[in-house]
Amino acid sequence: MNVYFDNSATTIPLDEVINEVAEGMKEYYANPSSLHKLGIKCEKKLLHSRELLAGTINCTREEIFFTSGGSESNNLIIRGITKVGNHIITSRFEHPSVLNTCKELEKVGIKITYLDVDEFGQIDMEQLEESISKNTVLVSIMHVNNEMGAIQDIEKIGKMIKEKSHRAKFHVDAVQSYGKIKIDVKKSNIDMLSVSGHKIHGPKGIGFLYLRKGLSLTPIITGGGQEKGLRSGTENLPAIMGMIKAAEVTCNNLQQNLDIVKRLKEYFIKKLSDIKDIRINSPLDERISPYILNISFLGIRAEVLLHLLEEKDIYVSPGSACSSKQVVSKGSHVLNALGLCEKEISGAIRFSLSPYNTIQEVDYVIENLKQSLLFLRRVKI
Amino acid sequence: MNVYFDNSATTIPLDEVINEVAEGMKEYYANPSSLHKLGIKCEKKLLHSRELLAGTINCTREEIFFTSGGSESNNLIIRGITKVGNHIITSRFEHPSVLNTCKELEKVGIKITYLDVDEFGQIDMEQLEESISKNTVLVSIMHVNNEMGAIQDIEKIGKMIKEKSHRAKFHVDAVQSYGKIKIDVKKSNIDMLSVSGHKIHGPKGIGFLYLRKGLSLTPIITGGGQEKGLRSGTENLPAIMGMIKAAEVTCNNLQQNLDIVKRLKEYFIKKLSDIKDIRINSPLDERISPYILNISFLGIRAEVLLHLLEEKDIYVSPGSACSSKQVVSKGSHVLNALGLCEKEISGAIRFSLSPYNTIQEVDYVIENLKQSLLFLRRVKI
Repeated sequence: MNVYFDNSATTIPLDEVINEVAEGMKEYYANPSSLHKLGIKCEKKLLHSRELLAGTINCTREEIFFTSGGSESNNLIIRGITKVGNHIITSRFEHPSVLNTCKELEKVGIKITYLDVDEFGQIDMEQLEESISKNTVLVSIMHVNNEMGAIQDIEKIGKMIKEKSHRAKFHVDAVQSYGKIKIDVKKSNIDMLSVSGHKIHGPKGIGFLYLRKGLSLTPIITGGGQEKGLRSGTENLPAIMGMIKAAEVTCNNLQQNLDIVKRLKEYFIKKLSDIKDIRINSPLDERISPYILNISFLGIRAEVLLHLLEEKDIYVSPGSACSSKQVVSKGSHVLNALGLCEKEISGAIRFSLSPYNTIQEVDYVIENLKQSLLFLRRVKI
Repeated sequence: MNVYFDNSATTIPLDEVINEVAEGMKEYYANPSSLHKLGIKCEKKLLHSRELLAGTINCTREEIFFTSGGSESNNLIIRGITKVGNHIITSRFEHPSVLNTCKELEKVGIKITYLDVDEFGQIDMEQLEESISKNTVLVSIMHVNNEMGAIQDIEKIGKMIKEKSHRAKFHVDAVQSYGKIKIDVKKSNIDMLSVSGHKIHGPKGIGFLYLRKGLSLTPIITGGGQEKGLRSGTENLPAIMGMIKAAEVTCNNLQQNLDIVKRLKEYFIKKLSDIKDIRINSPLDERISPYILNISFLGIRAEVLLHLLEEKDIYVSPGSACSSKQVVSKGSHVLNALGLCEKEISGAIRFSLSPYNTIQEVDYVIENLKQSLLFLRRVKI
């Protein structure tokens, strides 16, 4: 049995997504900027694609812009809105494409406030309110944390930002929530949003961002002026078509999928009850995504457990994939932000689920987890 | 009959490329940064991909970096190497992703010299030599011009830059030449090179750049630190696999393909001999790529001719795709740089070939071209 529990790192593309990309490469190969009818056919398809995505987050098609993925979307938004002397607010446990970009901007004279989070990964609303100043141009908060699944109350955050400042814009990194948790950019007062295709069983190398009408960003890639000048480069229509297919499948089955993974997570946690010396870092709680189960195995080094599990064809990560190598050497910045101790951090494994996983797979993982732990705790590796 | 003569805008992906992308999505879906064996399998594939590409331009695999395409490669190189007070030399007829990026940098205190070109699109070597100063950090020259096919003598240019300056780096935008004309980065003293996948019958949304060992660039997308920190974001392995397949097919058949398109272009030009009032802007000449045939139809507006041809399922562009809409309104900056008059510019059509085009297609195009011109010149639209 093969068990892929690394869905927050990337997902297995759906067959219909693969077919759609192939169809795009065969039938929609022209350059959408070409003036002939093959180009126009592609441009129309692009327009329709924007419309479909807009419908999933309650915005208009003019507010959808394609990028090469989540990291580019985050960079374009954060770099594109700030000037020297500006102030950005973010949290201590964002994705590296937000945190490291903020660190780069700090070097060139932009002030950054890193908000604390509690043990459930919730940002401190009072600290947020106090941090907003007249120089604050951006509050960048991830909707669902990629390592332990904390869900932020983006509606509450959006409301507060709007009440406190006319200048500060609200950016939501929705890479781990889009297609899994309902997002309404209008209702939540979101000004900008980042989404990645490959986290929702779509293709890699494609993503999009929502930019509220009337706002503008300084592009990081200039040239032919595609995407209304926001992002130059020939539009990657076949990948966009694949992402649209993935978005349709996930968004249309959002609640049903949520119920499936909730049952999987509940079952997983129930089955863990007879394993000693563990800490569940993402318990069953409405503030935490059911798609992620992060567990610390005390006294165990995560990477050793990971390799024992992979021998049984079970695929998991210590922390996130992006920062896996760093996590192994330095420890997770996310779990550190939650206030976990070193022992809890070094033994943490992220099991990230998809609605295509099954109860049988959980049983298989639990069985092998028990055997591996028995072995490791006996030999004390 | 369908005749796609818009291969410089984008190419039709090869069947084996489409299959390879699908194979990548099915078999190499994991995140190459994941520590488990599925991730490691992808990381190995990535490494092997770099090696294969390195072999095509005579560099090492450590010098190959993946990006989302030609525009991103050009931006990363130009933006990544310059600081306020620096000087860049480029030509007047570069791709918009070079020219517009230079224009952006000019606004923030970087000096740009735009070299003139002669009627064959050759840069002025004396002007280049005179322009190199102690502040020059970059000379960015396209190998093959996208609108009229001028081939620059990159070996001669590379040699001169090295003789004149220890500081100035040589960047070659090889988007229109890679896979078509042999490139040896060592022999030509090239420090940086940009390549796009979709111009060689590969996938869109993928490209690579060569960065000579020892050089560094400031990234424009920061985050998880992929591509040795030069370009963050989950590596798009399925598209990379597709590009590798396309690179293999094109580079392995480079000379044979060149012979095919040369014969097509020769035949095309021969057949044009009984059409009056035309100017061939990219004649048969060793300084001009046989892949591009740019012709001015005097007294005709290019976009009108384009639409008549598309009615016969013949697909061409006025100038490049990227700047098609601009070309129609303002006229081509490339043809303007060559010194053409307004009449010659407004009537210019680019027929861009591939080795998959045929003599029969040229016959069909010539036949319909004659009919269209007869009609247009009679009614004087």
